[in-house]
Amino acid sequence: MRLPVGEQVDLDAYDTRATPGAPDGKQAAVADGARTGKRLARLQERLWASGAAGDRRRVLLVLQGMDTSGKGGTVKHVIGHLNPAGCRIQAFKAPTEEERRHDFLWRVRAALPRPGEIGIFDRSHYEDVLVARVRHLAPPAEIGSRYGLINDFERTLAEDGVTVIKCFLHISNEEQRRRLLRRLDRPDKHWKFAPGDIDDRVLWPAYQEAYELALERCAAPHAPWYVVPADRKWYRNWAIGRLLLEHLQELDPRYPEGDFDVAACRERLLKEP
Amino acid sequence: MRLPVGEQVDLDAYDTRATPGAPDGKQAAVADGARTGKRLARLQERLWASGAAGDRRRVLLVLQGMDTSGKGGTVKHVIGHLNPAGCRIQAFKAPTEEERRHDFLWRVRAALPRPGEIGIFDRSHYEDVLVARVRHLAPPAEIGSRYGLINDFERTLAEDGVTVIKCFLHISNEEQRRRLLRRLDRPDKHWKFAPGDIDDRVLWPAYQEAYELALERCAAPHAPWYVVPADRKWYRNWAIGRLLLEHLQELDPRYPEGDFDVAACRERLLKEP
Repeated sequence: MRLPVGEQVDLDAYDTRATPGAPDGKQAAVADGARTGKRLARLQERLWASGAAGDRRRVLLVLQGMDTSGKGGTVKHVIGHLNPAGCRIQAFKAPTEEERRHDFLWRVRAALPRPGEIGIFDRSHYEDVLVARVRHLAPPAEIGSRYGLINDFERTLAEDGVTVIKCFLHISNEEQRRRLLRRLDRPDKHWKFAPGDIDDRVLWPAYQEAYELALERCAAPHAPWYVVPADRKWYRNWAIGRLLLEHLQELDPRYPEGDFDVAACRERLLKEP
Repeated sequence: MRLPVGEQVDLDAYDTRATPGAPDGKQAAVADGARTGKRLARLQERLWASGAAGDRRRVLLVLQGMDTSGKGGTVKHVIGHLNPAGCRIQAFKAPTEEERRHDFLWRVRAALPRPGEIGIFDRSHYEDVLVARVRHLAPPAEIGSRYGLINDFERTLAEDGVTVIKCFLHISNEEQRRRLLRRLDRPDKHWKFAPGDIDDRVLWPAYQEAYELALERCAAPHAPWYVVPADRKWYRNWAIGRLLLEHLQELDPRYPEGDFDVAACRERLLKEP
């Protein structure tokens, strides 16, 4: 799932229905995911506590994928296990007029997690080499320069203590059709639907190509890309939970030690009127 | 629990161990709280959906209380039921140098929930009439003027579609002592402790008085104050969950209707190659 750095990416080579590494079947994966959630919450508290003591480390989870690929569902089901006070979640939409007046990374910098936090981007600066490329929203040379700018940016993040985890939620064209049809079937899902989503499907091959380029050019050892098979929602949730867990375990944040005299404090507390 | 508007407030008259309205006992309250959590999540999604369709309504939950009163625990246990993507949580600490260069409401305005969101303030603009008053951080006349400014501010919020719910988590002095002692007993809680927390206990009566003034002067029909007995954590969680639920039920947000031709969209989706 972790993309090798510097190699060509062929998304067709990744089965969108695969379930690598998962427990046997949906039920077992959901149960395992709940256990992972509890471990995530414990590690998150330690990260937060060490951040309060001056540790600058934090995590940034970047979620990218076609419409209906489950970016929002991942936030709800995976990030939902965490203490919301320590999460900084940002969904990026088409840039506002103010955002367009700045360089494309400006709004991203403003939304970064602070020390001790877990940041989640639902879409990200990658849109500026994805939709921007497919819909020709900027001159080709400018878009071409953005891959390098993104790599520089992510390197500075890593140097500043940010663990960057980038997930491409990989669904098939057929699965997207099924999900859009399901949204049409349910009036309580209509708010998520726009007829333009159908028009966009004509651009599917162009988007896949733009993703391949982005994944290829911006996979770095300090900011890896993961291709997450996402046709099965339970697998997507399980896999991203595990990814977060592995990275947090590697960070191994610790509760900071108090720099005060515990016995003296206890005595004062007990003695006071 | 809901404070009447325009009457004097005597915090001693409220029992910090009371459990008004709760199911019988902790276990039942926790189970009921979990059910409330599910209902909250459903209403939150509707609020979010209607926000996406232009409805400007949102909720702002303000949590205030002495150290260890459980503001953070409320976020974890009550807000933890919600979809974190639709929550905007802000903890207010001592103002930074930049924040001090602006009026005291500046940083609060920047942290307000957007339409469709549920905002949570862990401490708030009320600190500017609480700690500011007790510790003489501003001239008395300036602090005196802030109550009116807060009332004006909250009125503009209400007029802009913000449902403001203000909770004072009411613990006893003795309970705070117990909680601080417990923090000392557990090395994994030391990061939450500072010896200054003990010094602050000398100021307990002054803080209670400052709270009484704030609750008295800033209880408004459109921005009520609730006194939540908080010595029992399970009751605090249950009560604030219910409060949120009641306000969301009153808002009664609805899924917006789609403005597209469902049958035509379905046909297009099925026909395309």
